[in-house]
Amino acid sequence: MKRDIDALIEQMTLEEKVGMCSGLDFWYLKGVERLGIPSIMVTDGPHGLRKQAQDADHLGLSNSVPATCFPSAVGLASSWDRQLIEKVGVALGEEAQAEKVGVLLGPGANIKRSPLCGRNFEYFSEDPYLSSEIAASHIKGVQSQGVGTSLKHFAVNNQEHRRMTTDAIVDERTLREIYLASFENAVKKSEPWTVMCSYNKVNGEFAAENKTLLTDILRDEWGFEGFVVSDWGAVNERVDGLEAGLELEMPASFGLGDGKILEAVKSGKLSVEKLDRAVARLLRIIFMAFDNQKENASYDKDDHHQLAKQVASEGMVLLKNEDEILPLAKDKNVAVIGSFATQPRYQGGGSSHINPTKLDDIYEEMKQTANEEVTIAYAQGYHLNNDEVDDQLIEEAKKVAIESEVAVLFVGLPDRYESEGYDRTHMHIPENQQHLIEAVAKVQPNLVVVLSNGAPIEMPWLPHVKGLLEGYLGGQALGGAIAELLYGDVNPSGKLAETFPVKLSDNPSYLYFPGEGDRVEYREGLFVGYRYYDTKELQPLFPFGYGLSYTSFEYSNLTITNRKIQDTDSVTVNVTVKNTGSITGKEIVQLYVNDVESMVARPEKELKGFEKVELDPGEEKVVTFTLDKRSFAYYNVEMKDWHVETGEFAILVGKSSRDIVLKDTLKVTSTTSITPVVDRNTTVGDLLADPDLAPVAIEFQKEMNKNNPLLEAAQDNEETGEMMEAMMKYIPLRAIANFSMGNFTEEMLQDLIKKLNDARR
Amino acid sequence: MKRDIDALIEQMTLEEKVGMCSGLDFWYLKGVERLGIPSIMVTDGPHGLRKQAQDADHLGLSNSVPATCFPSAVGLASSWDRQLIEKVGVALGEEAQAEKVGVLLGPGANIKRSPLCGRNFEYFSEDPYLSSEIAASHIKGVQSQGVGTSLKHFAVNNQEHRRMTTDAIVDERTLREIYLASFENAVKKSEPWTVMCSYNKVNGEFAAENKTLLTDILRDEWGFEGFVVSDWGAVNERVDGLEAGLELEMPASFGLGDGKILEAVKSGKLSVEKLDRAVARLLRIIFMAFDNQKENASYDKDDHHQLAKQVASEGMVLLKNEDEILPLAKDKNVAVIGSFATQPRYQGGGSSHINPTKLDDIYEEMKQTANEEVTIAYAQGYHLNNDEVDDQLIEEAKKVAIESEVAVLFVGLPDRYESEGYDRTHMHIPENQQHLIEAVAKVQPNLVVVLSNGAPIEMPWLPHVKGLLEGYLGGQALGGAIAELLYGDVNPSGKLAETFPVKLSDNPSYLYFPGEGDRVEYREGLFVGYRYYDTKELQPLFPFGYGLSYTSFEYSNLTITNRKIQDTDSVTVNVTVKNTGSITGKEIVQLYVNDVESMVARPEKELKGFEKVELDPGEEKVVTFTLDKRSFAYYNVEMKDWHVETGEFAILVGKSSRDIVLKDTLKVTSTTSITPVVDRNTTVGDLLADPDLAPVAIEFQKEMNKNNPLLEAAQDNEETGEMMEAMMKYIPLRAIANFSMGNFTEEMLQDLIKKLNDARR
Repeated sequence: MKRDIDALIEQMTLEEKVGMCSGLDFWYLKGVERLGIPSIMVTDGPHGLRKQAQDADHLGLSNSVPATCFPSAVGLASSWDRQLIEKVGVALGEEAQAEKVGVLLGPGANIKRSPLCGRNFEYFSEDPYLSSEIAASHIKGVQSQGVGTSLKHFAVNNQEHRRMTTDAIVDERTLREIYLASFENAVKKSEPWTVMCSYNKVNGEFAAENKTLLTDILRDEWGFEGFVVSDWGAVNERVDGLEAGLELEMPASFGLGDGKILEAVKSGKLSVEKLDRAVARLLRIIFMAFDNQKENASYDKDDHHQLAKQVASEGMVLLKNEDEILPLAKDKNVAVIGSFATQPRYQGGGSSHINPTKLDDIYEEMKQTANEEVTIAYAQGYHLNNDEVDDQLIEEAKKVAIESEVAVLFVGLPDRYESEGYDRTHMHIPENQQHLIEAVAKVQPNLVVVLSNGAPIEMPWLPHVKGLLEGYLGGQALGGAIAELLYGDVNPSGKLAETFPVKLSDNPSYLYFPGEGDRVEYREGLFVGYRYYDTKELQPLFPFGYGLSYTSFEYSNLTITNRKIQDTDSVTVNVTVKNTGSITGKEIVQLYVNDVESMVARPEKELKGFEKVELDPGEEKVVTFTLDKRSFAYYNVEMKDWHVETGEFAILVGKSSRDIVLKDTLKVTSTTSITPVVDRNTTVGDLLADPDLAPVAIEFQKEMNKNNPLLEAAQDNEETGEMMEAMMKYIPLRAIANFSMGNFTEEMLQDLIKKLNDARR
Repeated sequence: MKRDIDALIEQMTLEEKVGMCSGLDFWYLKGVERLGIPSIMVTDGPHGLRKQAQDADHLGLSNSVPATCFPSAVGLASSWDRQLIEKVGVALGEEAQAEKVGVLLGPGANIKRSPLCGRNFEYFSEDPYLSSEIAASHIKGVQSQGVGTSLKHFAVNNQEHRRMTTDAIVDERTLREIYLASFENAVKKSEPWTVMCSYNKVNGEFAAENKTLLTDILRDEWGFEGFVVSDWGAVNERVDGLEAGLELEMPASFGLGDGKILEAVKSGKLSVEKLDRAVARLLRIIFMAFDNQKENASYDKDDHHQLAKQVASEGMVLLKNEDEILPLAKDKNVAVIGSFATQPRYQGGGSSHINPTKLDDIYEEMKQTANEEVTIAYAQGYHLNNDEVDDQLIEEAKKVAIESEVAVLFVGLPDRYESEGYDRTHMHIPENQQHLIEAVAKVQPNLVVVLSNGAPIEMPWLPHVKGLLEGYLGGQALGGAIAELLYGDVNPSGKLAETFPVKLSDNPSYLYFPGEGDRVEYREGLFVGYRYYDTKELQPLFPFGYGLSYTSFEYSNLTITNRKIQDTDSVTVNVTVKNTGSITGKEIVQLYVNDVESMVARPEKELKGFEKVELDPGEEKVVTFTLDKRSFAYYNVEMKDWHVETGEFAILVGKSSRDIVLKDTLKVTSTTSITPVVDRNTTVGDLLADPDLAPVAIEFQKEMNKNNPLLEAAQDNEETGEMMEAMMKYIPLRAIANFSMGNFTEEMLQDLIKKLNDARR
């Protein structure tokens, strides 16, 4: 239905227009009945619908109507499967339609700067390329159903600690290459209907009133056309926010924010045009939501549960499989140990916490998957609500472990350890769980650990464990997924979307996280995640992109279509992948780029492509990647643009960031050049390195030496020559005066500078 | 002799005054004959006099008159012996007197930020406390002889790469606590006659025209009363420099700089008062040098050589001594291998390079120290002037190694690897030396390596070596020192004044060194050297403060005189040290402080005291340390002052930064307090944590809950309570509006803020 927004705005009173700029209550936008403007509903969350029931607290905390709980973002991302994520989006869109929700408040594309961030489970990755690709797929899926998304939290919201007041200080290049890049691609590719600004400040200004972010970059550069909504309670100065590009304040401020806008318009501080522009953006999306609403929409709960199971199994990551302890033979007696096996942790705490349509019991699912005649014993092992070691539970666990052929321990982070709202302060699992692992390991060497957690943990006990499955927060169907993976009905195919460091202090942000007072400096800059570990040559516990399979893959035939390109060209890279094992499996092929030599700091490698392929035993497929300027570029803060340095780039194709199996290079030539102006502080070395300027410099040097035989002699002297050369290289033109015995005047300096700048034209 | 400087200045013409502000030539200041103002000479260097002969190039490069070459600064510092360094200073002063030199251009107190800095051998340490203590002793010694020093290079000159143009970007706290602190104590304690400004920019301004550094901090805060001289060629804009506090331009700019000052005074841009002030400072020091000049001064070359040997042996560091391979028995046949044994590298390249009065041959010294009847064979092993492996030399080396009972290999960094003027790009020793070690290790397990180098190297070959002596650049008497240490005539007592990382990439500055173009960001901040390795829990190859002895020491009885002090008090710490071995030795006892809990980032530990004590076998002594405010303080950039946070501090006494053997705590109470003003973005958590404000906040919260029973219920709810609590903690006052169902108005907010600020008064 075609709507004439402008005509509608003309009919609105000033008060009505102002009113549109904040919510009606916690979840509804305002409507204007007399003009047929509907009041639409927005609802959390990224991995399932959290629509609060009518009798709820309206603070966004109490029970919501049942909805399918898909794996948390961390689990979605570790599937590395764009199509699958899109399917999840479609399912979420269907559920939103069924519940008459206009906009789903997600996905979250914040970068995992520190493993401690309490909300990491809601975010995809430490890598902006992977994160933005997954976010784009998620958005595409949801919006295909006529339901909007809200890409959040824009931007640089990478911790919960003092999240509403902290100021994230991040240099421009890092902002562009890491923290914004994670949003950029998703905005450009999938056009989310709305973007949610974050609570925090970015370089001194609240995101909610940051014109650079909300208008200059988001709209003008990236072409965003929806509206920006505040995170719940993120508005600081409402009028400044509106000016900067924040259209909607949520939740309601009950006239407070509206009053301020009204006053600003009346006093002339805020132009009506700006208000109208905001209202137009709001109305456009409100009507998109309204006009796309489907009558009597519904969804199949069982189908969605099945999809949740598929996604869970594709996102779980097999981290260790010594002696091929996995998959478990179905005729073995197994000890299932740990409270999580019967009280699974399947989602994170906070605004994304939903009420699932059903919930698998892991222990039950394992019993159903194993052969009927075997014994699948259970022992609780530890209490979930505290960290204290219960010796009796430990003894029980040891007993069932001894009596079985293999023990599977379910451990991880309890709800109280990680949640929206606060960050962790360490990476340990509770003492009672750690003790359990060590106790059982002493009596049962055939030990498998399954983890439930939203972010990396330290694993001092890893050497005692033969099998390790990272289950993350697997959603309501995690039980079936885990059982199928453990017993080999499904072949593991997830890979880590984040680095697991050996210990917390290895993390690049460690020295500066979570900041001092309301100031957190991102001093590690670009070196986030594997960019840090790889460049610093620091061995992680498990590297980014890592994950095992029950089959094996071989890579061959890396080909680059063109080995000499300009930065405006794109180039295709092919690689052949073969399943060399005996069962069907999926492999995530990763392409990284390395700038072989650079004038600026660049990470050892950067992910620029990935594909997940399914292969039957013996089957091989050609995987194709397309690289373009951005695959080679860094953000040049002087040029305020992406720039490729002319030179060689290495193409690295591998199974993980630390398992590069094929490598080749190509040469990229820049189509833009940087030509700094010569001034009194230009160094002799820089002149000699510049083909345009070197002849002028050499000519001048000859002249100078003619007047200064001692200088010439020193340069020729074997003992002093090398140092002289180095010293001369770094000497600025103005300092020649001090080494020229009076033969260098200010006029000569000015004349030389002019000649040099002329030579460049 | 009392001089009336002011009267003299009155008699000077403008041109004469201007003339004083730059040198006469490369080494002499100008004089004014008609007024009896002498032309004094200044001369490099910190570890020996480099007075250029009259027929030299006057570029500061060619041969100088013979002088005693003491160990380079790195070797001096690793003695950790204040008295000994002072003796070296006295000797340098005597030599300067003998050569009629008025000011010695040293010592250098720049911090070793990266092991790659080409000039690290001229600097003392990565730790500002140790560096400034050693610098203070050095200055005290030299100046006791009526000869001035020039403490250099002020400031933040921590690399040679683009040293004349690069801009060192360093945050204020790091600047104060690390880079300036290394100068501060030396200036305050020993009052150097002159300070030399560095080439580089500091936070955007050339050091040579940086008023904050040269005037506000150096003179006004630290009380410096001498003159500031430019590093040779460091002047950018001469008039800006003079305004900022740079009195003397060196070397001569042959009228160029003078002309600019003259013009500025004439045009009124520069006041005559400022010029006069500079001239007064210059004249004061010129006359101090002149009036202190001793007639017919001379020195005893042999005595100074002996002192050079003593210092060398106290500064060398025994790093490994497996199976007690050292000391060598004098009746053993020894293979001495490596060019360095006969062509020792005993000093670094650049402006500090001097012409020694004599030079020990290491091989000869070893032969003289061993028993006469034994065979001390020699093999060259490698070429010094290139990196290529010479198989014949390797075979020769293996042969003498096999035929001996123990092999001593002399390896390290050749001149071409490290020098003033350029930085290293890696930490390897040459390929041919590395190959030599591995080849010899295969045939002779009793292997000792002696290093000659000015800065840390990587040692992948370390496991194959039983004994390792870090000889640094040991000065002209290194041969005797090494022989005496290897054979046990002297017991090693040096400890590292810097961390040896396992590999270059472990270094904290690695990702940002040496910067991009003319900009180097000190992103690691405070975390320089062991402050980084210890806080990041990163194992170094050899830690700061580490060094072995042929005897053993036991520490006991750590006592703190007062366990509860105010930050204005000082406190005494005693510890008993006992020689538990069988020979006399010296131990360097180190005291570190750790702030147990802090609102700001603080390193794991910081050196705040050290003492070197000599103990006979069985002897014990009480070592006393005095700690004051600075021992516990950090630099608070808001207060622009040093601040101690009230709380517990740990006193750590140890044999090295990684071998803390005694620990105790005390409580320090701050006498200043920081009370931020409450505003709309003050968080609820901060209010509740403040004893003055909490009652007001709690009262207000009660009122709010009364109007909002749902909110109260959510807080009490077991499931949501914890997250609610965390969320409330970080919520700023202004956001209460969004969670209060319309019960919170702007007036209430303003009223609450007023009440809270009132409550603090």
